[in-house]
Formats: sequence, C-alpha cells, structure tokens
Amino acid sequence: MKALQWHGAYKVEVADDIPAPTVTAPGDAVVRVVRSAICGTDLHPYRGEIDSFTPGTVTGHEFTGVVEEVGPDVRHLRPGDRVVASDVIACGTCWNCRRGWHYQCDRVGLFGYDTVVGTTAVAGGHAEYVRVPFADVVLSPIPEDVSDERALLIGDVLSTGYACATGGGVKPGDTVAVVGCGPVGLLAMKAAGILGAATVLAVDPLPARRALAEEHGAVGLAPGPDLVERVRELTGGRGADVVLEAVGTDASLLSALEIVRPRGTVSAAGAHASTAMPMPTGLAFGKELTLRFVVGDPISVREPLMNLVRTGRLDPTFVISHRMPLAEAAEGFRLFDAGLASKVVLIP
Amino acid sequence: MKALQWHGAYKVEVADDIPAPTVTAPGDAVVRVVRSAICGTDLHPYRGEIDSFTPGTVTGHEFTGVVEEVGPDVRHLRPGDRVVASDVIACGTCWNCRRGWHYQCDRVGLFGYDTVVGTTAVAGGHAEYVRVPFADVVLSPIPEDVSDERALLIGDVLSTGYACATGGGVKPGDTVAVVGCGPVGLLAMKAAGILGAATVLAVDPLPARRALAEEHGAVGLAPGPDLVERVRELTGGRGADVVLEAVGTDASLLSALEIVRPRGTVSAAGAHASTAMPMPTGLAFGKELTLRFVVGDPISVREPLMNLVRTGRLDPTFVISHRMPLAEAAEGFRLFDAGLASKVVLIP
Amino acid sequence: MKALQWHGAYKVEVADDIPAPTVTAPGDAVVRVVRSAICGTDLHPYRGEIDSFTPGTVTGHEFTGVVEEVGPDVRHLRPGDRVVASDVIACGTCWNCRRGWHYQCDRVGLFGYDTVVGTTAVAGGHAEYVRVPFADVVLSPIPEDVSDERALLIGDVLSTGYACATGGGVKPGDTVAVVGCGPVGLLAMKAAGILGAATVLAVDPLPARRALAEEHGAVGLAPGPDLVERVRELTGGRGADVVLEAVGTDASLLSALEIVRPRGTVSAAGAHASTAMPMPTGLAFGKELTLRFVVGDPISVREPLMNLVRTGRLDPTFVISHRMPLAEAAEGFRLFDAGLASKVVLIP
Amino acid sequence: MKALQWHGAYKVEVADDIPAPTVTAPGDAVVRVVRSAICGTDLHPYRGEIDSFTPGTVTGHEFTGVVEEVGPDVRHLRPGDRVVASDVIACGTCWNCRRGWHYQCDRVGLFGYDTVVGTTAVAGGHAEYVRVPFADVVLSPIPEDVSDERALLIGDVLSTGYACATGGGVKPGDTVAVVGCGPVGLLAMKAAGILGAATVLAVDPLPARRALAEEHGAVGLAPGPDLVERVRELTGGRGADVVLEAVGTDASLLSALEIVRPRGTVSAAGAHASTAMPMPTGLAFGKELTLRFVVGDPISVREPLMNLVRTGRLDPTFVISHRMPLAEAAEGFRLFDAGLASKVVLIP
Repeated sequence: MKALQWHGAYKVEVADDIPAPTVTAPGDAVVRVVRSAICGTDLHPYRGEIDSFTPGTVTGHEFTGVVEEVGPDVRHLRPGDRVVASDVIACGTCWNCRRGWHYQCDRVGLFGYDTVVGTTAVAGGHAEYVRVPFADVVLSPIPEDVSDERALLIGDVLSTGYACATGGGVKPGDTVAVVGCGPVGLLAMKAAGILGAATVLAVDPLPARRALAEEHGAVGLAPGPDLVERVRELTGGRGADVVLEAVGTDASLLSALEIVRPRGTVSAAGAHASTAMPMPTGLAFGKELTLRFVVGDPISVREPLMNLVRTGRLDPTFVISHRMPLAEAAEGFRLFDAGLASKVVLIP
Repeated sequence: MKALQWHGAYKVEVADDIPAPTVTAPGDAVVRVVRSAICGTDLHPYRGEIDSFTPGTVTGHEFTGVVEEVGPDVRHLRPGDRVVASDVIACGTCWNCRRGWHYQCDRVGLFGYDTVVGTTAVAGGHAEYVRVPFADVVLSPIPEDVSDERALLIGDVLSTGYACATGGGVKPGDTVAVVGCGPVGLLAMKAAGILGAATVLAVDPLPARRALAEEHGAVGLAPGPDLVERVRELTGGRGADVVLEAVGTDASLLSALEIVRPRGTVSAAGAHASTAMPMPTGLAFGKELTLRFVVGDPISVREPLMNLVRTGRLDPTFVISHRMPLAEAAEGFRLFDAGLASKVVLIP
Repeated sequence: MKALQWHGAYKVEVADDIPAPTVTAPGDAVVRVVRSAICGTDLHPYRGEIDSFTPGTVTGHEFTGVVEEVGPDVRHLRPGDRVVASDVIACGTCWNCRRGWHYQCDRVGLFGYDTVVGTTAVAGGHAEYVRVPFADVVLSPIPEDVSDERALLIGDVLSTGYACATGGGVKPGDTVAVVGCGPVGLLAMKAAGILGAATVLAVDPLPARRALAEEHGAVGLAPGPDLVERVRELTGGRGADVVLEAVGTDASLLSALEIVRPRGTVSAAGAHASTAMPMPTGLAFGKELTLRFVVGDPISVREPLMNLVRTGRLDPTFVISHRMPLAEAAEGFRLFDAGLASKVVLIP
Repeated sequence: MKALQWHGAYKVEVADDIPAPTVTAPGDAVVRVVRSAICGTDLHPYRGEIDSFTPGTVTGHEFTGVVEEVGPDVRHLRPGDRVVASDVIACGTCWNCRRGWHYQCDRVGLFGYDTVVGTTAVAGGHAEYVRVPFADVVLSPIPEDVSDERALLIGDVLSTGYACATGGGVKPGDTVAVVGCGPVGLLAMKAAGILGAATVLAVDPLPARRALAEEHGAVGLAPGPDLVERVRELTGGRGADVVLEAVGTDASLLSALEIVRPRGTVSAAGAHASTAMPMPTGLAFGKELTLRFVVGDPISVREPLMNLVRTGRLDPTFVISHRMPLAEAAEGFRLFDAGLASKVVLIP
C-alpha cells in the first residue's frame, strides 16, 4: 500500500510498496483510510527533535476511514462501518481507562509516533490502511450525515481543544483568553463558545492567525510587553476568567499566568516538556490560581463533539487550509512546518 | 404619576394621579421606569385566581430604568445610573441570601405582587416610578452599550429560563426537550444552547410558538399521545437527556417525566402549585431520575447573562411581540391573556 | 449443590440436589459462595407480591465467594480469587455502562430475581455456587486483609446507601435526615458521615432501629405529626439540608419532602413503585427542591467503599443481626420478614 | 491595654499602656479578646523577613472574643456576642466578595500584618482588644456549647487546612498525602478525613510531627530520595490521589508533584513566594495534573467547620501544644520559632 514514512529530520516520503496491515490481535480492526491530517505533534519528529524516533515509521494519528476487517473479539464494529480513530490508543478496561483517563492507560500508544508514548509502536494513518488495536475502544462510528472531513479532527485537535476548555472550567458569560491560535487554540476557542463564553481574546503573534480568530468572533491580541495591560483594559481591570494555553512553551505559560484573573484557571493543552519552567509561585499563590495540564482524549469526549458536529453547532473544518493527495504528503509537511498551512488534510 | 392598578378579575387600568414613591428606608432607591413588561405570572391576579390580591395594587415585576434617588445606605448606585431590577426582592445578607438563594430570603418580596410572595407588598413596575428596597442587591447596572429592551428580560424570564437550563445540568452535545414554548420556555431553549445543547426539541400545542422555536433552531413537537414515541425516534430510542418544563401543570410535568431518558433530569420552572400531582414514582425510580424545581433568581445569574447580552451572544428580545405605551397597558394584558401576544413591553 | 428455592408466597426451602452451575458464556465465571445475605428486596417475592415470579428460582443477590472457573474471555479474574459480586448484572460496554449507569444496561439483570429486572433470569447467591455473567464487570476482588463479611454488603445495601448519600449531595457540616433505618438507611447514615455530615437525624417508627442509629451517633426521631416541628427545632428552623429516604412508600417520600429545608435535596433509595404518589409540587416549587431517585450500583462505587472498609474507616457489619447456615435460610427469611432480624447472613 | 508589639527581627514585647481601640467606622466592632494564637505566618516578620514591616505593629490574626461595642451599621452582632474573627478582613460586598473570594477583596487586609496584605494596617489580636472592620462579615458567632479554644482555629489554620483539602478535591476512598505536618498540614489531614479519605500519608522531616499525625490515623513518611518509591508502594504503584502541600517551599511543591498520581491534584496551601520555582511542566503534562494554590478564607468555610466542631466530629485543638498568658507571648514566639511548640495559644 501507499504510506508516508519518516526517515530522519526533514526526510519524509511516500512509498507505495509498504505491506498493508492485517488483524494481528483479536481486538484489532483494519481501517481503509479516507482522510488523514498532519498534526503539530508530527513536527517534532519531522524536525528531528526526537532522537529515538525509528526510521521507517509510518506517521499520522488523525484519520477517518472505513472498517475493512475486524478481529474475533470486536463487538461493536463491522466491515463497512465509517469510523474516526482516537489518536490515543487505549485498552478501555484497565484501572485508568475505567475512569476515562485513556492517556494514562496501562497499554497506551499513539498512532504513528513510535514508542514516544507507551511502549509499542503502531503504524499511523498517513497511509492507505491502518491496523487499529482495541478497535471497539479506539474507533467511533461516523453518523451517515457527517462527512469524513467534519469528523476527522475529533480524533485529536478538536478533542484536545475541547478538553482544554472544559479543563479550564469555562462558564457562561466568561471572558476566555486563548494563548496560541494554531488549530488546537482555535478549536479551544470554539469549544469555549460552546461552553458559553461571552468574550474570547485570541493571543497570537501571527496576524493571519489572529485574523482567522477574529473572523470567528474573537478579539485578536498580539503578545508583547503590553499584553497584560491590554487584557486588563478589556476585562474591567481583572484579567481573563480562564486562559486556554495552546502553545507549550515556558513563555506562553508564563503569559497565561499573568493575564488570568485572581481565582482564575489556566488550562494548558500545549505539549509542555520543561524540567524547570520558572514558575512564579508567589504570583500564583497571591492570585489563588488553578493550573491544569490537559493532554486531550478523544475517547472520552467524542460523543458530545460528534453530536455538535452533526447538528451543525460546531464546524471544525475552518482550521483546514490545505487538502492534497497522500502522494504529496511530503509537501504538506513542508508547508505546515514553514507556517504556510494551518492544517493539511491528506486524501489517499 | 401614571401607573397600572389591579382592581379585580380582568380589571386593570392606568391612572395618572398615583403618588410617586419616595425613599423610605436607607437602602432604598427610586427608579424612573424606562421599560417594563407583562409576565405570565401577572395573569394569575389578572384572571382573578388569587383571592387575597389587594385592589389598587400597582403590578409589574420586570422593569428597567434610571436611578432617581438613593437612600443613605446605598453604596453601589448613584442617580442617573441605568439599571435593571430583579423581580425577586432580597436583603442580600441573611443566611439564605449569603448562599445565593434570594427567593428564600428572610425578607423576600416580589414587585407588584402584593403579599403572595413574602409579607410586605411593594408596588410594581407598570408605573413611571418604582421604589426599590435593598437597592444595592436588587438593582444591577446596565452597561452603556446595552439597550433597555435587551436588558429588560434579565429581570425575570431570561433569568428563569437560564436557571431552568442550568438546574437541568445541560451539557455540551445534549438533546434537550423544552415543554412549553412561552417566553420562559423559549429562553430556557436559548439558555440550553448557551450551555452547549446539540439539539433542542420544543414541545408546545400552539403552532405559532413551535414555529418561533423552530426559527431559533429547535425541532417543534406537538404534545399528544405519540409524543413519547416521537422523542424516542429523535433520540436513538433513549429519550431526552434533559427536559426543561416551563408550563407548571401536572400534565406538563408528567409529560416531562415520560420523555426524559433514564438517568436524566427534569428541571421544572413552571410555577407548580399542586398538592397532589399524581407522581409516577415507579417510573422515576426505574429510570433513576432527578427532578428539580426552579423558581429563578436574577440576582444570582444576571452577571453572566448581561455579559452574553452585551457581546451579542444572547438576544432575548425575539420573544417580544408587542411594544405599547404604558397608557395602553390594559390592552396589553388583554392581548397577552388571550394568547395573542407572546411578550408585551410597556413604555411609560 | 445446596441452594434455597422460592416456591410461592412464604414458601422457600433449601434443596441439596440442585445442579451446580457451569460456565456457559465466554465471559462467565463460576463462584463458590462463602457468604450471602437476605435483602429487603427479597421480601417482595417472599411475600408473594410479584405475580410473575417463577417457582424454583434460587434467590439471593448479595454474596461473596471464591472464583472456581472462568470462561475464555475473562481477563481480570483467576480461579482462587476472592470476590464480591454486584447485585446488578451489567455488560460493561453498552452506551449506559460506558457512562457508569449499570442499572440501565441494555442487558441488565439481578441475581436471583427472575426477570423482574431485565429479561434473563440468573440464579442467585443463596446457594453453594453461582454462575456470574460478565464476570470481569460484575465481580470485584476482595483484598487479602478484608474479611468476606466486611466485603459482603458492598454488593448491594452499602453501595445503595452510599449512592443515596452521594445522590443527595451531602456536604461537610450538613444536617442529614435519614427516613427509614433498615440496613440501607443505616448505611446511608454511615455514608453521610463519610461525606462529612455534622449531624444525622434518624427517623424510624421502631425503637430498636432508632437505638441502633443512635449508637452510631444519630439523633433518633419517631415519625408522626410532630416530626416536621421536631426537625425544625433541631435545625434552627430550617429543615434538614439533605434527606435520605430509604423506605420506598408514598408516606415516607412525603415526609422527606416536608422535613427538607428550602433549596435542599431529597435522595430516595427506597424502591418506589407508585403510579400516582400525591406529590406536593406547590411545596416543592416554593422550596426549590431537588428530588433524586437512586437505585444503587455497586459496580460504580465499590472501589472507594472497599478502600474505606479496608482501612477501617467504614465497617458496615453493624447492621448484621444474624448469621446462620445456608441450610437454615428459610428460618432467616422468616425472622427477617417478621422484623426480628435486621440483616441475615447465610453461610453455605 | 496590654498587647504584643513587633519592634524588629526577634524583638517582640508586651506593653500594657497601649490605647484600646475604638469604633472608628460605622461597620466596626470592638472585640475583647478571649483567646489568640501565634500562626506560622507571624514568623515571617518575627524573623525579620519582611523589610517593610512597621515597628510597633500589634500582631496576631487568630483570635476569639466578646463583642464590646458595635458601630451603627453593624446588623448581625450585639455587645456580649461571643465571636471568632476571620484572619482575612473583607468588605463582603465587592465583586470578589460577592463570589466568596474574600482574600481578593478590593479592601482586603490581614489583622496584625501591617500592609503586607492590602493597603490598610489593622492592629492584631495579640492584645486585650481589637477593632474589627466590616464586623458583620469578619466576625462569626460562636455557639453556646463551643469553647473559645475549639472555635479559635477556625479563624485561620483550620479554615486553611480545610480549603486545602476541598481545593484538592478529596473524595471518599482517596489516598491523600499531606506534605508538611505543621498545624495547617495536620488540619488539612483532618479535613481530608472529613471529606472521606481512606488513607492519609503524612510527610514531614520531624519525627514528633509524624508521630502526632500517626496518632490521628495517618501513615508517617519522612521526605527524602526514597519518598516517591515509598508512596508508590503504599498506593499500588500509582501515587497519591491528592497531595496537600502545607510548607510553601519550592522543594515541598516539587515533592508534591512527584508523589501525586497521574490525573491527580496538588493543592498548595503553603505560602509560596518564588518568582521562579523550577516547575517540571513535562512531568505535569505527562501526568495531566492539576495544581491549585489555596490561601484559605475563613469567611467562606467557617459555617460547616463550626457545625463539625460543635457536634464533635472535628476537634482541631490537638494541634495546640502550649497555652500561656498574653504577658508571656514573647516566650511563645521563641518556642514556636525554635520548633519547640506546634501551636501556642495566648490568654489575655
């Protein structure tokens, strides 16, 4: 089959002689991919930032498709079912899964991400076919009246944005600041609206991203020394009720802690990786803040999101900038890495 | 001053020689009314259903206006401030008020409703001027960029509809049924949307009301023997996640209990008054239901609502069908009582 | 094997020639019973109140034991494991189970209760051996340092009492009234303590039950015309913050609605079965009450309960009045039915 | 009157010629002190750690007493009332106070702490008399059957410990680790019990403090390189469900983040003051943690605490090690600073 493989920093290429996957465990399904997407997380191996990444890895953890084959233990799916996959692979029955904490599953994995998460590599969705472990848990049906493209982002960025907003405890009437207006930030912004936010402040250095946020009702703000003051002006001197951080750097988290109001919450869905971010605990204590780190978990939140997508209350496709054949995926990576694409969808 | 007085069943009339109120307690304010409205609750005395109602009562508990005068203990208001009043009068400092339960205030009252609620009658807002007790608590400022008409319904029906939806625990993605599409039901429907409902089912016998609900995105349903089955079809066989009841009769509450799904919640904002509604406890137990009675309390919820109104996310004025001079208020009552008006706004 | 069978009203007897169950579905386990108990629910068929009950039914839905055999799909249990069963049988994977609503499971059942709950009869635990469907879901391990007797009641009455208290939203410092001091009521009382109740009022007509409640820190109260006044005196004139109803009659629920304070919650774990309980909706609306019906679900709550039992913070065995050999189970039923036993434990 | 004054690092002394306070604002009360206590917070000025501290300051923010005189605006108190003061002074009516966030009050203050919190110094409770601003808000009555000593700690450390536990979201059955077993930590431990914790792990370097925690049912643990491993062993390999941090140093917070389980919460009630605590955001993200900073607010939580103290469910006096006349307060400070006293109560 055709699939994209990672061979090293900035070296990804599509081959068409990769063996198609088969059912290897009784709970597996094989899915024929209909749409997949490139995620910001994919840029870490692309840029060579993950030393251990295995050459030959088929990448991609956002995909929809059609079930081709199921193992004998799969109960809720049949060949022909249209499905969207969760990026997080989880068993569904361990202590953590029973609590709905699938990213903490004893057998967690991430499609197309080698063993960076969990201990077992599972080939990803930038391919014509994918083997899906724990298929009853990982896959979710797409209703007839929902297109693949509308369902696609439920598998990762929409779920992450939504978890960021719910983790922040957004309430009706709130002023919510979003720090970072990439796909996760933009979808966190939309999710804040679903939860009743009255005002969204969208913070991003890129004018194009701010413009996109503003098209969707936000007030765009550039980061910088006057950000705290600007937010203060827009919030009656208090700061944002909730800040949704979707960048993942120390600077963005610091900024979030500064612009949130006393007794507010910072919900951080950026993929933080510091060992010593310089945390202003005096500020956080004086303001009685809550700081929550959110990875995102499609399995837990996909049902309400699918309901909202199906009835048209939520349309995540506005973050998609490019659609291209899977064969041109390397170009998609190049554009995305260069900041020239906000979200690239691949069509096998 | 000019004001509407109740003189008996179906007898309301505007007089223009009524003494204007003055500050009589240190916490009072006097407000010059800019807009008032007729509420469904006003129909009970209008129809002569409340034996004890005192002739001469100036009715009306929904109004906005401008502060004319304040007593010496009023701290947060000054003459000239534009304000919307809470229909519920509450002291703000008793045990119940400290918990935010203003309708249970030790000194609760309702404007223009004699002593039906509480023990002290306070003249209402169908007038040119109103005396407002506990003004710091009862009145809330209207931001400059919000019109009186947009703020008006926060004083009762919008707050009640919102409390009904929050009391029902509406969550993103839910299917919410609203039983009764008068102003409270319609605004409960809107509030359900603010809380993230994916689908709203609007149940009402009147086609015009269903049509109005459908204009705002709901699926209209007529009550009747096939209602349970229709709701079932629209909810994958389960029933509505939450039912918002906004009628106040035994029949409407029974209907709500039937169409809610197992483990669901019925939130009843209708003014229930039975001593022996025939409650199907077997059904409620088997379905593990929650039933919550909600009076509504503008004082507790007006801030998020005002934020949402101000930023345009919520516009309650679509329920207003008629605007007329205060002098014609009697005609307003007649139309409203006859079901020919959904909401009548009076302009002094 | 030996087991108790129901043959008609007041006719239960132990036979010793009943075929022992075997694994018949891949998810089954067979459990050798170590302890079982008679539950108030068992009195309905005992008294002949359930017309459809099938003669020959082996009763009993509270039991602990040792796993003898497991089917090929059972993953989390092995022969030799000590376990406590949930009274509710649930598949663990349907839409309701995924939400933790096991009593609403598409394939729900109740051990030893014929087809009164669900559509498939499963023989009960008043026996030497029991076949347990969906064993991974229904059975839960008993830690080494917890005795069978301490674990036993987690399978029903303790879980139900706990769900009643959590359903009532008991908070630290609350005054909680318990209506009905049978085993569920007494354990609801204990659960209220675990949730931080400062004061428990225990309402029961039987002096012995009130005395037992008082031994455990409650204030005993007899029902009757002065109950409302007595509760008022004990609560600064307000009423109980939360009422836990554990009887299941119209009268007990009415009483609960009367003694709860405004804005309070009545959580009803009694097995209500009326089609027309005379509900005072006017009272409930005026007091802005919440009424929640709670069946109980050991699968959802057994883990925290087992933790509390294991560390000794919670000891449910005080409700046990009798321990006897399984062979004498008919006598156990007689005593329990006559109100001469509060809880009978059977030892095979 | 007699009062303790701060004159510089390690220089506190009792004078008896200090003018007694009087009512100076209409909402003031003057309280005759019956009991006061020395708090860990008092050690900061004592040790000379606060440069700006004004010589002559009368210290002390934990006290009970009897109302001597009230200003004309005081409604809920009369001379002769026994009261406990909140350490936090708050107006009760500003935007923050209306939300119950008294520490964020626009006019916040702290008794006896100069202008370190807020902008107006208010003389403290290590004195015979104290002037209490916003007396209706700051003071709370002590029920007849509660001694001053039992009520005393509600004014600060018990409320702080309780807020720490509730901020951590402690649930029934949880394993809760407390880092730091000074008075706040010990009372957080008790509060965790009130919320249903099954197991408490008490971490402190001092054997005497661990011993005190163990007397109250905790498992004592010394900090050190093997702490993470020890907690793991005691929690089935997972870590503590909730960690209550009550020290206030970077090291203690780091330790808390390490021993909490994935998806757990660290609630930090230590008075953190770093500008750059080295925060392991990679760890926090991977574990999907929540970190909450808690100052404590007696005004919001004193009612449930008083209920629990009154009925004997909670007795905070076990943390008191010394009782001495106010005249010997300097010696009390010396003992407390040296770690020779856990809590010193002063008797005027």
